[in-house]
Amino acid sequence: MKTLTIGLFGFGVVGEGIYRVLLERPELGTRIKRICIRNPEKNRNAPKELFTTLAGDILDDPEIDLVVELIDDADAALRICRKAMQSGKVVVSANKKMIAENLTELVALQTKHNVSFLYEAAVCGSVPIIRNLEEYFDNDWLHSISGIVNGSTNYILTQMSLNGHAYDEVLTKAQELGFAESDPSLDVEGIDATYKLCLILFHAFGVIVDPHSILRKGITSLHPFDMQYAHEKGKRIKLIARTNRVNGTQYSAAVLPGFVGHSSKLFDVNNEYNGLLIGSSLADEQFLSGKGAGRYPTASAVLSDISALRYGYKYEYRKHSIGVDLSSHDKTTVELYLSYPARKKIDDSVFSQIHESYRGTDRGYLTGSITIGHIRESDWLKDNTVSVITLN
Amino acid sequence: MKTLTIGLFGFGVVGEGIYRVLLERPELGTRIKRICIRNPEKNRNAPKELFTTLAGDILDDPEIDLVVELIDDADAALRICRKAMQSGKVVVSANKKMIAENLTELVALQTKHNVSFLYEAAVCGSVPIIRNLEEYFDNDWLHSISGIVNGSTNYILTQMSLNGHAYDEVLTKAQELGFAESDPSLDVEGIDATYKLCLILFHAFGVIVDPHSILRKGITSLHPFDMQYAHEKGKRIKLIARTNRVNGTQYSAAVLPGFVGHSSKLFDVNNEYNGLLIGSSLADEQFLSGKGAGRYPTASAVLSDISALRYGYKYEYRKHSIGVDLSSHDKTTVELYLSYPARKKIDDSVFSQIHESYRGTDRGYLTGSITIGHIRESDWLKDNTVSVITLN
Repeated sequence: MKTLTIGLFGFGVVGEGIYRVLLERPELGTRIKRICIRNPEKNRNAPKELFTTLAGDILDDPEIDLVVELIDDADAALRICRKAMQSGKVVVSANKKMIAENLTELVALQTKHNVSFLYEAAVCGSVPIIRNLEEYFDNDWLHSISGIVNGSTNYILTQMSLNGHAYDEVLTKAQELGFAESDPSLDVEGIDATYKLCLILFHAFGVIVDPHSILRKGITSLHPFDMQYAHEKGKRIKLIARTNRVNGTQYSAAVLPGFVGHSSKLFDVNNEYNGLLIGSSLADEQFLSGKGAGRYPTASAVLSDISALRYGYKYEYRKHSIGVDLSSHDKTTVELYLSYPARKKIDDSVFSQIHESYRGTDRGYLTGSITIGHIRESDWLKDNTVSVITLN
Repeated sequence: MKTLTIGLFGFGVVGEGIYRVLLERPELGTRIKRICIRNPEKNRNAPKELFTTLAGDILDDPEIDLVVELIDDADAALRICRKAMQSGKVVVSANKKMIAENLTELVALQTKHNVSFLYEAAVCGSVPIIRNLEEYFDNDWLHSISGIVNGSTNYILTQMSLNGHAYDEVLTKAQELGFAESDPSLDVEGIDATYKLCLILFHAFGVIVDPHSILRKGITSLHPFDMQYAHEKGKRIKLIARTNRVNGTQYSAAVLPGFVGHSSKLFDVNNEYNGLLIGSSLADEQFLSGKGAGRYPTASAVLSDISALRYGYKYEYRKHSIGVDLSSHDKTTVELYLSYPARKKIDDSVFSQIHESYRGTDRGYLTGSITIGHIRESDWLKDNTVSVITLN
């Protein structure tokens, strides 16, 4: 078993969490030697001599063998991870944006320099999604993965639904509690969820997908009318990241709000909790859930990676050869609910079938079958007055 | 990556499942060379030349490097596993009784002969409990683990509760569906659950516990009166295997029926599904669930072990040094419900506090606080007219 000397980048909510936890666990034989921060003026709960503003103090220190990168800035994070691996250091990161946008390069760096790069905390905080996809479900054909992968939006949706609070009010509270990132748009627009979905797609099927190509709509356009509709039908609205087998090795992938019924395990995944359903040919439906955001849950995942590195663990990316592709994705038909201001004209000719159509004085809705391609080509994704919610 | 040549013991529900799955997946580079069975007369869905009744045809074959043991007989299973490891073969087993009763010897054999011995299928079928306790939660202090680990009893309890069916009727159906073992008493008396709890205790805390020392009562004494009580309180009765931190490194452990409320994730774990709640200091409450019994779910766990062996995986038993003990276990106080025939006299002086006491014409109940030691010393565990159900 290795003893590891750590250089830590970032001392925010999670960074300080990891620092505290490692202090309390000398038995891990792991110590933080330096912590690189941006602002040296801030008052911090740790000895002054640990801190530096120079990345080189960590990256050029041959005694440091593990770099833990926990900063917000994705470009700086990439430079740090790249340099660390080039110097033969193993790396733990929680930066889903940086990882999802640079998977090809990051995998190549690991191979070239024969180092580990782990990022369990990047998907669903404390819930061991990557590790289970990588290790346990590596031999089973998965036909669907769907879940709640963003704690901030789930907290907001839960509060809106349970307490009738307004979106803005709930967002502010989520930020105060540390459940929302410094830039909330990544969460509420569903962008963060697409990053996580890309990491899931990679570890489940070995396919690298550009996160910006994934069909996506966040929660900012959701209207009290939609909450009322959900309530009347005994459902809840959740932001769902999902991938489904269409046929053979063809899969679809999307991040959209969805109505979830009582019979789904996702119905009771509330507040900052995350939950993922994994459908496989043999094991049927597996469900994993736990806290997806917050200091200690995220620190728990980082710590688990650090602990695994003591045993020389690395991702093997075993699914790389399956040959899954998402090219026929846009032809997949989904059941959709659309709500819009009553005065607005909706071109419903793109639906292959309309199930219901309703127009009140203020707002109307329709439900029907439509291909993902037609949703993508519509202006509903960009239009903040239109709610797009999946029904199945 | 290794290609593995397999010798399979047992061709029952799971054995045949594994045989079929491996046939369909030539890409795993794994083939079954021989299958050892007890009865050569039975008609089987596989080429005749694969079968043998001689264990030596597998154990003495140097070409076979992996023994997959899927037989019912625990004594024979132990002899097979022992001999296989002594011959330097890696082993996969699903026999919880054999493993739980012989952990000390089985761990010593692995060390002595430097071989892997994996048994994910022994706990919660397809749900990756052992692997996650072993790999992912290896660094986090767990303060409680509780769950539904026996699919047969959960199927019976669900059917009794949802459809009002009688115990005997439901048991027969469970056996027909392959959800109950050949000897149902192991399931319905809670014995199977104590084996699984022992494996959980070992991988969570590194402590080896005699399964027969665990406080246990199964589901055979549950009375329609109890089902009615649960229904009126909005609860369900589940057979719960649990361990809780009492203080420091002192833990309690028991297998007892328990009332489960709507707010618990276990409430909606129904039929043959299993579910486990893992409470930890950092990650808070994690929940894993999936199918706990049946041909393919169990085969899925066995296959996952086989796949891991191709990469040389072995359990590291990392928690072995924590020093958890269950010696003060009996002093732990629990909240208990007891129901009994109205004419029966119950010595309630062993309760430290009585909350409720009720006596009708046919049956009475009382609820109160009591130590595990007092439950153990009572005759309620053996008395089939008394229901013992935990309230918390």
